[in-house]
Amino acid sequence: MRVGMLTGGGDCPGLNAVIRAVVRKGEVHYGDGFVGFRDGWKGLVEDRTQPLDVEHCRGILPRGGTILGTSRTNPYKIDDGVARVLRTLEAREVDALVAIGGEDTLGVAHRLAAEGVRVVGVPKTIDNDLSGTEVTFGFHTAVQIATEAIDRLHTTAESHDRVIVCEVMGRNAGWIATYAGIAGGAAEILVPEEPFHIDTVCESLKARHAQGRYASIVVVAEGAVPVAGTLEVASASTDQFGHPRLGGIANVLAPEIERRTGFETRVTILGHIQRGGTPTAYDRVLATRFGIAAIEAVHDGAFDQMVALRADRIVRVPLGDAVTTLKTVDPDLLHDVAGSFFS
Amino acid sequence: MRVGMLTGGGDCPGLNAVIRAVVRKGEVHYGDGFVGFRDGWKGLVEDRTQPLDVEHCRGILPRGGTILGTSRTNPYKIDDGVARVLRTLEAREVDALVAIGGEDTLGVAHRLAAEGVRVVGVPKTIDNDLSGTEVTFGFHTAVQIATEAIDRLHTTAESHDRVIVCEVMGRNAGWIATYAGIAGGAAEILVPEEPFHIDTVCESLKARHAQGRYASIVVVAEGAVPVAGTLEVASASTDQFGHPRLGGIANVLAPEIERRTGFETRVTILGHIQRGGTPTAYDRVLATRFGIAAIEAVHDGAFDQMVALRADRIVRVPLGDAVTTLKTVDPDLLHDVAGSFFS
Amino acid sequence: MRVGMLTGGGDCPGLNAVIRAVVRKGEVHYGDGFVGFRDGWKGLVEDRTQPLDVEHCRGILPRGGTILGTSRTNPYKIDDGVARVLRTLEAREVDALVAIGGEDTLGVAHRLAAEGVRVVGVPKTIDNDLSGTEVTFGFHTAVQIATEAIDRLHTTAESHDRVIVCEVMGRNAGWIATYAGIAGGAAEILVPEEPFHIDTVCESLKARHAQGRYASIVVVAEGAVPVAGTLEVASASTDQFGHPRLGGIANVLAPEIERRTGFETRVTILGHIQRGGTPTAYDRVLATRFGIAAIEAVHDGAFDQMVALRADRIVRVPLGDAVTTLKTVDPDLLHDVAGSFFS
Amino acid sequence: MRVGMLTGGGDCPGLNAVIRAVVRKGEVHYGDGFVGFRDGWKGLVEDRTQPLDVEHCRGILPRGGTILGTSRTNPYKIDDGVARVLRTLEAREVDALVAIGGEDTLGVAHRLAAEGVRVVGVPKTIDNDLSGTEVTFGFHTAVQIATEAIDRLHTTAESHDRVIVCEVMGRNAGWIATYAGIAGGAAEILVPEEPFHIDTVCESLKARHAQGRYASIVVVAEGAVPVAGTLEVASASTDQFGHPRLGGIANVLAPEIERRTGFETRVTILGHIQRGGTPTAYDRVLATRFGIAAIEAVHDGAFDQMVALRADRIVRVPLGDAVTTLKTVDPDLLHDVAGSFFS
Repeated sequence: MRVGMLTGGGDCPGLNAVIRAVVRKGEVHYGDGFVGFRDGWKGLVEDRTQPLDVEHCRGILPRGGTILGTSRTNPYKIDDGVARVLRTLEAREVDALVAIGGEDTLGVAHRLAAEGVRVVGVPKTIDNDLSGTEVTFGFHTAVQIATEAIDRLHTTAESHDRVIVCEVMGRNAGWIATYAGIAGGAAEILVPEEPFHIDTVCESLKARHAQGRYASIVVVAEGAVPVAGTLEVASASTDQFGHPRLGGIANVLAPEIERRTGFETRVTILGHIQRGGTPTAYDRVLATRFGIAAIEAVHDGAFDQMVALRADRIVRVPLGDAVTTLKTVDPDLLHDVAGSFFS
Repeated sequence: MRVGMLTGGGDCPGLNAVIRAVVRKGEVHYGDGFVGFRDGWKGLVEDRTQPLDVEHCRGILPRGGTILGTSRTNPYKIDDGVARVLRTLEAREVDALVAIGGEDTLGVAHRLAAEGVRVVGVPKTIDNDLSGTEVTFGFHTAVQIATEAIDRLHTTAESHDRVIVCEVMGRNAGWIATYAGIAGGAAEILVPEEPFHIDTVCESLKARHAQGRYASIVVVAEGAVPVAGTLEVASASTDQFGHPRLGGIANVLAPEIERRTGFETRVTILGHIQRGGTPTAYDRVLATRFGIAAIEAVHDGAFDQMVALRADRIVRVPLGDAVTTLKTVDPDLLHDVAGSFFS
Repeated sequence: MRVGMLTGGGDCPGLNAVIRAVVRKGEVHYGDGFVGFRDGWKGLVEDRTQPLDVEHCRGILPRGGTILGTSRTNPYKIDDGVARVLRTLEAREVDALVAIGGEDTLGVAHRLAAEGVRVVGVPKTIDNDLSGTEVTFGFHTAVQIATEAIDRLHTTAESHDRVIVCEVMGRNAGWIATYAGIAGGAAEILVPEEPFHIDTVCESLKARHAQGRYASIVVVAEGAVPVAGTLEVASASTDQFGHPRLGGIANVLAPEIERRTGFETRVTILGHIQRGGTPTAYDRVLATRFGIAAIEAVHDGAFDQMVALRADRIVRVPLGDAVTTLKTVDPDLLHDVAGSFFS
Repeated sequence: MRVGMLTGGGDCPGLNAVIRAVVRKGEVHYGDGFVGFRDGWKGLVEDRTQPLDVEHCRGILPRGGTILGTSRTNPYKIDDGVARVLRTLEAREVDALVAIGGEDTLGVAHRLAAEGVRVVGVPKTIDNDLSGTEVTFGFHTAVQIATEAIDRLHTTAESHDRVIVCEVMGRNAGWIATYAGIAGGAAEILVPEEPFHIDTVCESLKARHAQGRYASIVVVAEGAVPVAGTLEVASASTDQFGHPRLGGIANVLAPEIERRTGFETRVTILGHIQRGGTPTAYDRVLATRFGIAAIEAVHDGAFDQMVALRADRIVRVPLGDAVTTLKTVDPDLLHDVAGSFFS
């Protein structure tokens, strides 16, 4: 078979491991040929391709990013976009497509499947907020990077008796904040799932102080929001170009904590380092398993489906089911586990 | 309640995170008091204890090892051992016991439960070979360490056109070898589950060579064995004190590969570095979840049970079921996933 | 002898290694007793001490921060400050003082020496900008952390064809930016020593683009400034409390680059993670050598002097000389070495 | 100019950074063309080359190993070897040669210089034992890897009350052992420079034990030897092929310690992981500086010389001087610094 492949949305550690696994299994085991589309759906809209075979995948397993490039282009939002995708697939004689991406990328894949495109999805979101799979690759790498950063922040907070507010990724769900907060021994974890009340945060920090714990790390997801009417955050939410701004909430939160508690408070916004670089071993294995399963799905004709992890097994789930619901953090994890370490 | 705690068997990254979670949740949420027993069951046999409260657990989350010490002492193999354990529990006024350990430690816990000891188990094995739980803490840390080592070995193997045989832990099951082998891009993975044939290994390396791939990493679990009668390994299996020897099989395998293929072959035995040091974020979270669940089980009266991970949920399983079967590597993972990258 | 010790200024990886070396060598070799002063000169002003002996130093070698705490308190800026310092030294029966700190802390030490205080200095600045010593501990740890971050930024920059502006520490000198920029393969390095021209930066990025290099990392020291009159930066330089703000310049620079070049540009400000956490092996050894040399200087009566590294030897230099001149980046390193990789 | 380049001897982190710096500076600044010779002097003997320009050096800065390959071939030990080297240089129209290697590789370079070859040397030895330069690239990376391993060994040693003997590289000089031992907090450091006495080692460990320090790390360089007549080591020194064996001495030392002290003792031999993988930031900068300086030396006609680091400056030293003396560990470092932490 002739198989096309693309990666869409934000980059994520493990994308290259998926690509390598699909190509290796496809070429060596099934005798497939491959074509890489550049920069997500954009490559199909604009018919921009790159050669893709086992030789092109040498050495990419430990490398972050994606050798195919990525973008947020959505053919359904472009004049004639879908027709151009279909023309490219025909012109390139693509029998089946492997689409690696998040909610948007796989949403397009699902709609294209309805138009007859034979497509298999591989779930990708560093935020781990895609329903249908227990976990996505890249997530544990981001958590590891954030945890190592928090480990470092502890010693500086302790030397200076400071509060440090550490902002991590997570626009719609607080998985990274919750995991890194638990792993890093945070005093508070603030997530989008539950609006926070600044009074409660400050009372908790004061209670720690009263116990002689003068250094505290507050981990906050970028999408965390205060209870309506309790704290003004509007100005921080976009930059001058209207981009959603990395680092909004921590810059609001920290001075407010310092003002209310009198404790010296500093900000660290981890930003892009969470999504770059070599994947952890866990993510390399998960991404490889997804890749192997994706090409097997192609050969089984299991189209309009996505590979997923459930109870340590790779399964297939309908693309339509997978991309409609946001997977939010388990309240038990947040309250019974993480909450046990808050004052 | 007054709760005793012990850690038994080989040390493992995450033990301190379990201890901290049990103590923190118990003391703050339930008002429990704790007593630490030194060096596993030995502390109960010899009535050696150490104070254990929230203050003693400050700063231990990221630290490897166990603040309680550990040993392989089995009270059932000591004269009067069980009676001494029971006397210690009574003298120390212990209402319930949290035992953190592997097959041996939890086997003792299960037998003591039959004698009326109120005990909850927390599964621990760096080898990930304990049935009843999908994964154990420490395993992914060991895999990460081994994978980073393999990443390093690749560049030296490539510079010198060498085969490097890298021996990892795994006496009875090849989980670490399989995961680290997939994550590290190994050319061959040898595990205890399936005796290897030296001819097959060498043919595969020669096939790679013929394709211009002059550098190869062979990952071998310490418990891997050759097909009976194909390779002499007896002399390598114990040291002069009769200890099971770290690093038996690689030292046999490497010269044999060099002799048969003519390719320069070197050995690296990772040994104890795989079990020491700070746990990964994944293992810190898993260990913390296990600890929280263990003290909850104590308060639910769920004795003679073990906490476990299934489908990303913490569940309880009878201790009797958990410790009887060895969990071996899924053949699909070994053949369909890892095997896709062998020549 | 009875020796006092303090750490002042910003925290820095390796402070604990210095403390441990001083105490170990002093107690075991010379039979000294020690007293720790809390939070730099503040502990002497307020007579706040902590016990300090070999036992208190167990396990601190690999730990970031300082077990003595630190502050920026300057007794010469406090009413009666110097007299209180002298009274504390007398009350605590301190024969000699080891002061570990940067320009400010050692400047106080030098002035106190003129008042008869027997003090030995140990140079500390993560920015590496202290004259009198070839290198200071903590610097290479910060460079290593920044370089690992830049490695991660490369893959995300490449996947998205982006410019990423990475801001590192260095208020008055660009050592971290220069070293991390060379080690991380930066496209541009901007340092306080040489005001930058935004036009030149943008032309260079466009030249790279024209060669097909669509991803670029710009490393900028927090103290880098534009040539006067070329770019407005005032608003970014302090936060609402008047603190010098971490992350001023990158937030100005990135949108300006995007506006002028049309290339998508993002910001990462490393901030406090550069100064926390375990020191590199290099810094642990250097800090240990400094500590050993400091207590030897005390016993040699080499007061009002600072230990320093020159040509891989530990030497002593007068405190007065050491703290007066800023050590800036060697122009050859910036132009002939780093500059060779710019377009 | 047309410049040839080769890397010889064992691989070492930073080789690629040297290569990249030479090529980048040469091509962009001087307009040079390059030819890479494969596998050290072997490539010149056998006229095996590879293309080498700025494009070939993309992305190699953080990669361990050498893209040119390496070997220990010595043309002076091969019939007609030197003549073949000279013929290759002529046939390939090489105006000057940059030879990157250790004592053997640079020794050949120096002899070829006497035959009229225009050659500049770049010092390379992971063991840091080359006189003429204060430090060599790769050394601090090896020390960092060894130190991280020792950090890990501490927690496992402490959990089990064990002695762990950790063998590191260093056949003729104990730089890695000394630095990693200091940085890792070793209880004993054994180096080739000073034969050890097993009684002294065991007495020291017993003294620690008597102070309640039940866990000890002994760092031993592979080339450390016992005082003549005190311990039998012959059998461990070569493998069955007569290769000098990685891991001789630790396997002799550990059982002897256990036998004499009764303390459980284990072995870890770090081996090849010390020389592979990405260089530290320090080594990337040093290697880059060496590379820039080497091509500048070529254009200055400074042949039969080697670039070197002295007092943080890059200088040139005659090749003849540089390769004749072994640089051994400073006794002050071993006794006054490291020794201060032994019992």
